Amino acid sequence: MRMYDIIHKKRDGIALSQEEISFVIQGFTNDSIPDYQMAALAMAIFIRGMSPEETAHLTLAMAASGDQIDLSQVKGVKVDKHSTGGVGDTTTLVLLPLVASVGVPVAKMSGRGLGHTGGTIDKLEAIPGFSIERSKEEFIEQVNSKGAALMGQSGSIAPADKKLYALRDVTATVDSIPLISSSIMSKKIAAGADAIVLDVKTGEGAFMKTLEGSFALAEAMVNIGENVGRHTIAVISDMDQPLGYAIGNALEVQEAIDTLRGQGPADLTELCLVLGSYMVVAAGVAGNAMEARAKLHESLESGRALETFKTFLTAQGGDASVVDDATRLPQAAKKIPVTLPRTGFVSHIHAEEVGTGAMLLGAGRETKESEIDLAVGIVLHKKVGDRVEAGEAIATLHVNDEKRVAEVTERLQRAYELSEQKQPNHRLIFGVVTQQGTERFV
Amino acid sequence: MRMYDIIHKKRDGIALSQEEISFVIQGFTNDSIPDYQMAALAMAIFIRGMSPEETAHLTLAMAASGDQIDLSQVKGVKVDKHSTGGVGDTTTLVLLPLVASVGVPVAKMSGRGLGHTGGTIDKLEAIPGFSIERSKEEFIEQVNSKGAALMGQSGSIAPADKKLYALRDVTATVDSIPLISSSIMSKKIAAGADAIVLDVKTGEGAFMKTLEGSFALAEAMVNIGENVGRHTIAVISDMDQPLGYAIGNALEVQEAIDTLRGQGPADLTELCLVLGSYMVVAAGVAGNAMEARAKLHESLESGRALETFKTFLTAQGGDASVVDDATRLPQAAKKIPVTLPRTGFVSHIHAEEVGTGAMLLGAGRETKESEIDLAVGIVLHKKVGDRVEAGEAIATLHVNDEKRVAEVTERLQRAYELSEQKQPNHRLIFGVVTQQGTERFV
Repeated sequence: MRMYDIIHKKRDGIALSQEEISFVIQGFTNDSIPDYQMAALAMAIFIRGMSPEETAHLTLAMAASGDQIDLSQVKGVKVDKHSTGGVGDTTTLVLLPLVASVGVPVAKMSGRGLGHTGGTIDKLEAIPGFSIERSKEEFIEQVNSKGAALMGQSGSIAPADKKLYALRDVTATVDSIPLISSSIMSKKIAAGADAIVLDVKTGEGAFMKTLEGSFALAEAMVNIGENVGRHTIAVISDMDQPLGYAIGNALEVQEAIDTLRGQGPADLTELCLVLGSYMVVAAGVAGNAMEARAKLHESLESGRALETFKTFLTAQGGDASVVDDATRLPQAAKKIPVTLPRTGFVSHIHAEEVGTGAMLLGAGRETKESEIDLAVGIVLHKKVGDRVEAGEAIATLHVNDEKRVAEVTERLQRAYELSEQKQPNHRLIFGVVTQQGTERFV
Repeated sequence: MRMYDIIHKKRDGIALSQEEISFVIQGFTNDSIPDYQMAALAMAIFIRGMSPEETAHLTLAMAASGDQIDLSQVKGVKVDKHSTGGVGDTTTLVLLPLVASVGVPVAKMSGRGLGHTGGTIDKLEAIPGFSIERSKEEFIEQVNSKGAALMGQSGSIAPADKKLYALRDVTATVDSIPLISSSIMSKKIAAGADAIVLDVKTGEGAFMKTLEGSFALAEAMVNIGENVGRHTIAVISDMDQPLGYAIGNALEVQEAIDTLRGQGPADLTELCLVLGSYMVVAAGVAGNAMEARAKLHESLESGRALETFKTFLTAQGGDASVVDDATRLPQAAKKIPVTLPRTGFVSHIHAEEVGTGAMLLGAGRETKESEIDLAVGIVLHKKVGDRVEAGEAIATLHVNDEKRVAEVTERLQRAYELSEQKQPNHRLIFGVVTQQGTERFV
C-alpha cells in the first residue's frame, strides 16, 4: 500500500477502505508518512468529503493510535458527555454530580485546554485541596465506591488526532465535518465511553455558527457512534449568548453549586436537565427521558445532587465546605461594574466578545504556557430579553490585574445590543439527533 | 499576507491575486513556506483549478524564482521548441540544424533528465568530442556566428518549479493542467525564448493520454504565452506509436542524420517540417507556414541542413565526420532481432512498452544516478499499417549487457498488436492551437 495511491484516490473522490485509512493513520502517527503527504490528503478529504463509513473508520483508527482506556472494571454503562465548546459553559461541573446522584457511574477524563476559561480540571482546582493525581486503579475504585471520579487525560489518548489537528490548523482544513466529528469521537471512544451524549453548540459564540452546520456535525457524530457500536445522542443548543451568567473558573464553580442547589440560571439548569436526562437514559438508569428528568429534578430539590458533589470533592481531596461557604473559593481583589449609556431591552449578546474579555482578564490561556488566574472573570447581570436602564450594571468584572479593564469594559459594552421592544424568548434547544433520526424543534 | 489565508481562499475556489501567487512562490523557494502548506495548496489548486490569469501569474512567478537568461545579445527572434515527451522523439536533434539552416537563430538550453533515453545533451554526447561546456558569452557568440549553439541548463532555471514538481510528484498533484502548463512555460520563459513552439504529444505513449486533455494543455500553454507576451503555438501530435524507428541515444543521432539527409522516417520528417515551419514563421524568417515549409524542404534537399549540422557539431568540439560515417558513433556489441509468432498487419504499438524496453537495455536513466549506455536501444522495423510475417523481425535490440534481453523481447512482443485487415493510415497531427484559436484536424 502506498500513500501516493491513497491521496490519488481521495483526490478523485473515491472512498477509501478501512485498510487504507488504518495505513494512513498508523503511518502518520509513527512518522513514516510525512506531513506534506498528510496535508495533501487532508485537503482532498476537506474538498471531496468522506462517507459515514470512511468517517467511522477514521475515528476508530485515530482512537487506536494511542492508549485505549479500559473501563470494564467500572460497574454499569459508562456515559460520557462532550460539548463542542462555547462561552460560560458550566454544564460539565453540574452534570458530573447530578447524574452520579441518580446512579449513573461517572468516570470522567478531562483536559486543561486553551480557551476563554480553563478546562474542567482547572475550574475544580479553584477548590482548595482538589487533586486529579490518582492511579488508574484508584480512579476506577472511586467510581465504584463514590459514584464519580475525575482524572487528567493521558497524553497518549488519540495521538494521531492531536498530530492531525495541528496540521489541519495550519493548512486551512479544520472546518470539515468528517474531520471534526472523527476528531471528537476518537477521543471519547479511546477514553472508554460506552455511550456518548453530545452538546453541539450553535450560533455566534460556537465553533459551528449556523444551525445547518451544527445539525450536520451532530448527525455525523451520531452516525459514527452507530457505526462503531457506541450509543450516541446529540443535543443542539444555543450559543448565541453565553450560557448562565458566570465566565471564569471559581465563578463557574460557584454557579455550578447554585445550580445544584436548584438556584442556578434558568438556561444552564434547563440544559443540564436535558443533557442529564439523555445520559441517565443511555446508562439504563431510567426507561425514558421523562422519567430520567423527574429523577434529576427530585435530586436537585432534595439536596442529593449537592450532597453527591460534596462526596465527590472530598474523595478528590477537595475542601467540600466551599459548597456552603463561597468565600473559601479564590476571590478577585476588585469587582468593577460595567454599565451602558443607553436604555432598552437586551436583544443580543456577542458571546465571543464576552469570552475573550474573560480570557483577557486572566481566566483562560492565550497560549499553552499562560498561567490561569482562577479568581477572575465576568459575571453577567443581564441576558437577552432583560430590560437595562442607562447607567445600570450589565455585568461585573472580577479583576486582580487592572491593566486590561478598559479594554474588557469596551468589549463588553460592544457585546451588548439593545432594542426598544422586548425580543421573543430566546430558544435554548434547537433539536436532538439520535440513531433513530433528527428531531428539530424549530 | 499569510499562507493560511491563501490556502483557505483557493480551497473555497476563489481566484488568487498576482501578489498572493508571488508571495507563495517566493516563500516556497526560500523555504519560509513549509512543504505541508504548499502540498495543501497544490491539492486545492488540483481540485479547484486556476483561471488563465492565475496560471499566467504562477508561470511568471516561477520563471522569476531563479536565473532569467538574457538573450538580447543574440540577433533575431529567439524561438524555442518544447515537446511534452514521448517515445523515440528525435525532433529536437533534427530541428536544431534544420531551422538554423534557413536563418532562425538557435540558442538552445537543454537538460539530461530521466526517461526512456537521455535528453538532447546525452544524445549528442554520443558524438566523439561533443561538449556543452561553454560560458554564456561563448554561447551567444556561437549563435551569432554559427547560427546555433547548445548549452546545459543552469541549475537555477525556475528553481520554484523544480521544488514544486518534486512535491507534486509525491502528493498526487501532477496531472493538473494549470500546474503542468505553468511548469513547462516557466522554464521556457526563464530560458529567454521570445517565441515558443510546443509539440504536445497525445496518446498512450504520451503524458496526456486523451486528445481532449492534450488540447486543453495546449490551450492552457498558448493562453499563458498570450498573457505574458510570448508568441506561442502548439501542435498536437500522435504518440500512439513511437515516432520514427529509433529509440536510443546514438541510434537517434543516426536517425536524425538520415532525416537531415532527406532519408528519414516519414512521420519524423513530417513532424519536423510542421514544427519547423511554425518556428520559422515565429522567427519572422518566412511570412507564412507554406513559405516556411518550402524553405525547410529545400534545405533538406540541397544538403544545407546536413551541412549546418556539421558546422554546429564542429563548433561544439564534436567530430562532424560521424555524419558521413555512422560507424564512428558508439556501437552496441550485439544486435538481436525480435520476431513475432503470428502474421498480420500492425494495428497498434504500445509506445510505453517500447520506451521502457529501451530504458531497461540501458538507454535511459531509471534514477538520477543511473549511467546511460549511449550505444544501446531499439530499432523498430515495422510500424502501424505494415505487414508482418510470422518469424519476420519487427525490431532489433542493440545490446551491450544481455541480462535483460528476454524481458525486453517479451515487452516488445507484447507491444505489437496485429489485425487481419490493414488499418486506415495513422494520423500524425491532430490540430494546432494558436492565439487566434484552436484548429482541429479530426
